[in-house]
Amino acid sequence: MNIEKMTRRQLIGLAAVATAAAVTDWDDASRTVGRVEAATMKHGGSGGGKAEQVAPGVWRIRFGKPEKLTPLSFRTAPIHKEGFSSLTPCDQPPFSLDDITFRTTGRGCAVTLPMTTEERIFGFGLNTKLFDKTDRRVFLRPSDDPEGSLGDSHAPVPFYVSTEGYGVYMDTARYASFYSGNVAPTAVRGATGAGGGPADNTQDLYRQRTLSAKTMLVDVPSAEGVDVYIFGGPAMGDAVCRYNLFSGGGAPPPLWGLGVAYRGKGDFSAADSLKLAQTLRDEKMPCDIWGVEPGWQTKTYSCSFVWNTGKFPNPDGFIREMRGLGYRTSFWEHAFTHSSSPIHKDLEPFSGDYRVWDGLVPDFAGKSARTIFGRYQDKVLYAKGADSVKLDECDNQPDSATPWSFPEASSFPSGLDGEQYHSLIGALYQQTMWEPLRRRNKRTWGLVRNAHALAAPLPYVVYSDSYDHRCYVRGLVNAGFSGLLWTPEVRDAGSPEELCRRIGTVIFSPYAMVNAWYIALPPWIQVNRDKNNAGEPMPEQASTTDAVRSLFQLRMSLLPYLYSAFHSYAETGTPPTRALVMDWPDDKASHAVDDQFLCGPSLMVAPMFTGQTNRDVYLPPGLWYDYWTGEKLAGGRKIEGVSKPLDQVPLYVRDNTLLPLAEPIEHVTSDTRFALIVRVYGDTPTPVTLYADDGETYDYEHGALNRVTLSWNGGKGEIVTKGGYTGPERYEVVRWTPMG
Amino acid sequence: MNIEKMTRRQLIGLAAVATAAAVTDWDDASRTVGRVEAATMKHGGSGGGKAEQVAPGVWRIRFGKPEKLTPLSFRTAPIHKEGFSSLTPCDQPPFSLDDITFRTTGRGCAVTLPMTTEERIFGFGLNTKLFDKTDRRVFLRPSDDPEGSLGDSHAPVPFYVSTEGYGVYMDTARYASFYSGNVAPTAVRGATGAGGGPADNTQDLYRQRTLSAKTMLVDVPSAEGVDVYIFGGPAMGDAVCRYNLFSGGGAPPPLWGLGVAYRGKGDFSAADSLKLAQTLRDEKMPCDIWGVEPGWQTKTYSCSFVWNTGKFPNPDGFIREMRGLGYRTSFWEHAFTHSSSPIHKDLEPFSGDYRVWDGLVPDFAGKSARTIFGRYQDKVLYAKGADSVKLDECDNQPDSATPWSFPEASSFPSGLDGEQYHSLIGALYQQTMWEPLRRRNKRTWGLVRNAHALAAPLPYVVYSDSYDHRCYVRGLVNAGFSGLLWTPEVRDAGSPEELCRRIGTVIFSPYAMVNAWYIALPPWIQVNRDKNNAGEPMPEQASTTDAVRSLFQLRMSLLPYLYSAFHSYAETGTPPTRALVMDWPDDKASHAVDDQFLCGPSLMVAPMFTGQTNRDVYLPPGLWYDYWTGEKLAGGRKIEGVSKPLDQVPLYVRDNTLLPLAEPIEHVTSDTRFALIVRVYGDTPTPVTLYADDGETYDYEHGALNRVTLSWNGGKGEIVTKGGYTGPERYEVVRWTPMG
Repeated sequence: MNIEKMTRRQLIGLAAVATAAAVTDWDDASRTVGRVEAATMKHGGSGGGKAEQVAPGVWRIRFGKPEKLTPLSFRTAPIHKEGFSSLTPCDQPPFSLDDITFRTTGRGCAVTLPMTTEERIFGFGLNTKLFDKTDRRVFLRPSDDPEGSLGDSHAPVPFYVSTEGYGVYMDTARYASFYSGNVAPTAVRGATGAGGGPADNTQDLYRQRTLSAKTMLVDVPSAEGVDVYIFGGPAMGDAVCRYNLFSGGGAPPPLWGLGVAYRGKGDFSAADSLKLAQTLRDEKMPCDIWGVEPGWQTKTYSCSFVWNTGKFPNPDGFIREMRGLGYRTSFWEHAFTHSSSPIHKDLEPFSGDYRVWDGLVPDFAGKSARTIFGRYQDKVLYAKGADSVKLDECDNQPDSATPWSFPEASSFPSGLDGEQYHSLIGALYQQTMWEPLRRRNKRTWGLVRNAHALAAPLPYVVYSDSYDHRCYVRGLVNAGFSGLLWTPEVRDAGSPEELCRRIGTVIFSPYAMVNAWYIALPPWIQVNRDKNNAGEPMPEQASTTDAVRSLFQLRMSLLPYLYSAFHSYAETGTPPTRALVMDWPDDKASHAVDDQFLCGPSLMVAPMFTGQTNRDVYLPPGLWYDYWTGEKLAGGRKIEGVSKPLDQVPLYVRDNTLLPLAEPIEHVTSDTRFALIVRVYGDTPTPVTLYADDGETYDYEHGALNRVTLSWNGGKGEIVTKGGYTGPERYEVVRWTPMG
Repeated sequence: MNIEKMTRRQLIGLAAVATAAAVTDWDDASRTVGRVEAATMKHGGSGGGKAEQVAPGVWRIRFGKPEKLTPLSFRTAPIHKEGFSSLTPCDQPPFSLDDITFRTTGRGCAVTLPMTTEERIFGFGLNTKLFDKTDRRVFLRPSDDPEGSLGDSHAPVPFYVSTEGYGVYMDTARYASFYSGNVAPTAVRGATGAGGGPADNTQDLYRQRTLSAKTMLVDVPSAEGVDVYIFGGPAMGDAVCRYNLFSGGGAPPPLWGLGVAYRGKGDFSAADSLKLAQTLRDEKMPCDIWGVEPGWQTKTYSCSFVWNTGKFPNPDGFIREMRGLGYRTSFWEHAFTHSSSPIHKDLEPFSGDYRVWDGLVPDFAGKSARTIFGRYQDKVLYAKGADSVKLDECDNQPDSATPWSFPEASSFPSGLDGEQYHSLIGALYQQTMWEPLRRRNKRTWGLVRNAHALAAPLPYVVYSDSYDHRCYVRGLVNAGFSGLLWTPEVRDAGSPEELCRRIGTVIFSPYAMVNAWYIALPPWIQVNRDKNNAGEPMPEQASTTDAVRSLFQLRMSLLPYLYSAFHSYAETGTPPTRALVMDWPDDKASHAVDDQFLCGPSLMVAPMFTGQTNRDVYLPPGLWYDYWTGEKLAGGRKIEGVSKPLDQVPLYVRDNTLLPLAEPIEHVTSDTRFALIVRVYGDTPTPVTLYADDGETYDYEHGALNRVTLSWNGGKGEIVTKGGYTGPERYEVVRWTPMG
C-alpha cells in the first residue's frame, strides 16, 4: 500500500494499518499528512516557539521538544482540507501568537495563553456535570466516572473553545491540567482585585474571587515540549468546525446507524434475542440495531473471544436470521484477552507489562497487536455478518484505590506508557476494530467507553454506565465542543414517565439506544427490574408502548434530516448536536444554557425531566416555531411553563427552515425510500440538501452519492438532484407544508 | 560556619542555613552527611541499581538518574548514627535486593519490590481513614483534606513498613503512586487465581479478587531515576526506628510543649487573651501554651506580618504578661506574603511565579527567601518573646476545581516545580521558622498543616481542619509509622460528652490542644457555638469543667513519662504514639486495630467515642493492668463492655512497667519539680529512665542532661542519677506503689 498515492478518504481508517509497520513509520506518515503536507503560510516566533499555519485558519506553534507519541501521531484520518472552503475565511490568528509563553519544569512543561476577563471557555471533552469551564482547573484524565468535578470523564479532550471565537488544541496524551483564568502569575500584581490592609482573622477566609487579569495556564506533565494548535473563527462554531476538519471531518454513519438501537439482556441466547426481536416487529416498534453479548467473558471477566456455543450454537445463522428480521447486530466486547483465547499466545509479546482481570492488554499502537487482534475479530465477527461492536471497559479508575485497569506506570512495546495509553486506548481500539470493516467497504456505527482528541472521524459513539438524565443532556451539549459523539442511552427508569422522558432525549442523539441489558422484557412493558424479569407487565404497558413507539417514530421521521446533519459533520465539521452558545456565542444568555441543545441545523430540543409538569425554555435570538403546534415565537427570551405529553418533547424549529419529515419506517433496508413531508418555516427558507447513497458502503467516496437539494421559491417547492448514485431512489416528496 | 567541624546536634536545624548558600551546596552537604559519610559496607547490583549500605541495616539502591531535588536534599538533620546501636543488629537486607526492578517510562520511572502474599503494609504518612495499606493504590499527594481515600493527606510520606519486618523509603518529592499487591505483571500468569472458561455475561463483573502472587509497584512520575532505601528490622518497629534515626532522630520537645495548649478565639485582642488566660488560672485549669492570631492577614487573606496594633498595641508587653501568667505563646501565620508586607519587595525575586491570595509564595528551598523571611519573623516574633508558631495553609487542594494554592506547574528560583514544592513546603517552612530559634538556643513546639518525608527531627505537630473523632484516632495510630507527630485537636463538640471523649484522646497525643478559635468562652463552659459567643454557659458547665480538668491533670501527671518517651524518640527513633501492630507485628489480631494506640513504652489507650456506653478493647499478647482499677488482665484477647466515666479513658499498662506519675502541676516553670508516685506493675519491672534538664534550651546536647533511672529490685525502689545537668532538680519520688 502506498500512502502517498491514496486519496484522503482511502486513508481514513486504513491509514493506521498502512503505516503502523513500525510506530515510527506511522508517526512519520502522520506528520506527512497532518503536519508537513499543509503549506506553511505564515512564520513567526511566539513565546520561543515556531509558528506555522498548517491549515486555513489553523496555526501550530511548536514549543520545546514535543513527545513523539501524541494523539496526532495516531490520527485516524488526514486533515480534511477541502472542508475548510465551506468556512468563513480566517487569515489572521485570533490573538497574537507572541503572547503565548512556554517553559519547561522538572515536572514537564507549562504553556500560558492570553485570556480576556470577559470570555467564557467551553469544551475539554465529554462532561456530564460541568458546562462553562471558565475560572477553574480542568484535569484531563480518562475515567470510568463521567461525573468527575475536575473534568475527568470517558472522553477528556485537550481542546477548548472560547466565546471570543477561537479554539486551542494541545497535542498531548498526558493528563494535562488547564487553569482557565483562576491562577495569578506573580508578575501580574493586584490581579485579585481586592485591596490590602489588615483583616480581622481567619474567619475572613476562603472568599471566592474573580481575578482582574487572566491567563490560561496549561500544565503538561512529563513532556519537554508540546505542539499547540490555534484554531481561528471568526466565531466559536467556526473554530469547532476547523478542529473537526483538522481531525479529518466527522464520521458518516450508515443509514441504519441512525435508527433505533435495542440491547437485549446480557445473558440472552440467540433464541432469546430472536424471539424478542420478532416481538418488536410484531409491536411495530421501530428498531434497526440489536445489541447482544456473545458470552466470551471468562470467569476472570477477561475475554476469550470464543463464542459461547451453549447460547450461540451457530453465530452465522443467528446473525443471518436477525438480518432477516431487519436488524443489524452489535456485539459487546472488551480488549483484555484471557489466556484461553486463541490469540493470547500471539498477542503476548505485543501487550503491556501488566494484566487486567488476568488478561493481556494489547498494544493497539503497534501494527502487530492491531493485526493479530483485528484479523481475529474480523474472522469471528465481521466475516459472520456482524455489523458493529460495543467496546467496553477501555477507560480508567483514577480515583479508585483498587483500580482494575492497567497502572499508569505500565510500559507498552510501542513505547507508550500507561498514562498515554489510557488516553489513547479508546481511539486505538476503535481504529483496530474499524479497520477490518473499512477493508470490507462496510460502514459501521459502534459504541465505545473511551475517547480523546481528534475523534471526529471515528464511527463510534461514547456511552456511559453512570446515569442521570440532566447529566446525560449536559453530556450531549458538551460533546459537540470536542469532536465527540455521545449517547444518553436509556437504561434505568423509575417510572413510565421517566422512561418516556429519557427516550425523548435519546432520539435526538447520535445513537438512539435503549439498553435493556439486565431486563428480559423491554422497559416499556415493565420498568421495574424484578417484575420485568419475573415476566410481569406493568399496568401502563399499553400507553407506555404507544408513547415510546411515537417517540421512536419521530426519530425515524427525522432520519433524512439527521443523515444530512451527519454529512455536514463529515464535510464541514459542524457537530450534529451542540450547545446553544456554539451558534450564539455573542448572546450571553446562551452561555449558561446546558439543558437544551441544537440537533442538526434547524432544531432545538429542550428535554423535559421526570417530575416536571412544565419547564422554562430559552429561545436564542431570532424567530422560532413550536414543532408540535406551529406556533411562531420570538426569540432572545425565556418562555415559561412549556409542557408536552409523554409522547412528545419540547422541540423548536429555527426560522427559515425547510424541514423534511419522513413517513416513519420500522427499519432501514437497502431500498428504503423515504416519503417526505417538507415543512416550510418562514418566508425565505434556506435550501436543504439531503444525501442519497447506498447507506452502507464507502462507495459514496468515489462518487456514488446524490445531493438532493430542496428549495422553496415563490410558494413552490423545488428538488434538484445531482451526483453519481444510481441505486434505488431514497426520497420522494409527497407534500410541502407551509407552516404559519 | 564550617559544616565539616560541627557535631551532629549542631547541624540539626542549622544545617539548612549552613549549606543553603546555594541549593547545590546544600544538596552536596546533605549527600556528605546522609549518603557518602556512612561507610559502604556492601556492594551489589540489583535490578540494574547500585546497592550500598548507608547506615546499619539501611541500604540504598540508586536506580537511573535520580532527581537532584528530593526530600533528602533538604534533610533537616544528619543521620543519627549513634542511635542505631540501641537497635537489634541487622546485617543482611530483609530480602534480596536483586529482586527489585527498575525501568524508566515516558511518564517517569517505575520500581517493583517483592512482596509475599501474607505480609501487610502500613505507613505512607498521615491518614485518618485508611489503616492497612495492602492490596491498594496509595497516591502521595499533599492535600488539605486528610480524609482522602487514595492516601493523599496533610502529610503523605513515601515510606512504608511491612509486618515482615522491613521498611522502604523512596526519595522523591513527586506525587508517587504505590500499588501494594494489587497489580498483575503480565509475566506472572494466573496471578488472579480464578480459573478460565466461559462466564455468562457482564453481570459476573467486578468481583474483588486477591492476587495469588504479589509485587509492590511504585510509580514515580517525571523522574528518570530514584534512590530506594531499604530499612531492615528484624521487626517492623525496628525498621521504623531505623527510618527515624536515618531522618535524624525524633524532635525533643521543650518540657512546656507537652503541657496543655489552648487556642483562643481568632479575633481575640491582647486584652481578651489576657483576661481568659487569667480565668483559666483561676479555674486551676492546667495550660502551658496559648495560641492566638496576631491579625496580620490582609483583606486578600495573604499575610502582611504586621501586627494588628488595634488588637495588639504592644506585642512585647502582651507576650511578657502572658509569660507572667505561666503561658508560652503560639502565633498563627501562613507564608503567602502580601504586597503590603515589609518583606514583599525583598522576597519577590526569591518567590514562585504564581501568587496565592495575591501573596508571594516564598521559595524556602533557597537561602535568600529563608533568610529574608526567617530574619524578619525572628524580629517580629521571637525577639519579642514568642515561643512558637502555627504554620497554616501550606498544603494543597488537588481535588478542587478552584484550588487556592500555587499550581503544580509553578516554577521556583531553586529549581523546584510546584509539584515538588507542594510536597516539600511544609518541611522547608518548618525549617525556616525553626532556624532562628535554634540560633537563640531555644526549643520550640509548633503546629503545621503539611509535612512529608524525614520529618522526625522537626519540632512541629501536624494538625487538621477536618474533624471526626474516630478518624483523628486513626491519624494518631498511623502517624507513628512515618516519622510524624499528629494532634487530634479538640474543636467541634456537639455535647459535653463529646468534648470529654475528644479531650480523652488528645491528652495522649504530642500536642494536647483545645482549639477554641471560633468561640469566646472555653468549650467546657459551653459547647454550643452561638450560645458560647452569646456568653451563655451550659447547665453542665461545672461537671464538664471538672471532668476536663481531671483529664488535663492526667496529662500533667504523665509529663515525666512523656518527656522520657520523646527522648526515646530522639535517641532510638521509637515513636511516642504508635499502632499496636508496630509492637506486635506477628499478632494477626493486632493488624486490624486502628482505634487503640500505644503511648510511650508502657501505656495503651482505647478511647471511647461519643454515644458509646462501652466498647471492646483488644489486649495484645502478654499481661495488662487496668490503669484505673489495677485489675490484672490476660492479653491476646478482646475484652468486652469496657466503660469509663467522662473524666477517665480506658487505659492499660503493660506488665513489668514502672510508671512514674507526677502530682499534676498547672504549668511548667524553670524550677518545676515533679513529685512522683511510681507505680510498680508486675514482678520484674523494667527500669525506666527519666530525663532532667532545663527543659527549654539545647544545652542538653552539650551534656547538661541527667538520666534519672528508676528501678525496682527485691521489693525496693532505686534511683540512679547520671549526667551533667546542674539546674533545679526535676524529680522527687514520694512513693513507690506496687500494683496487684
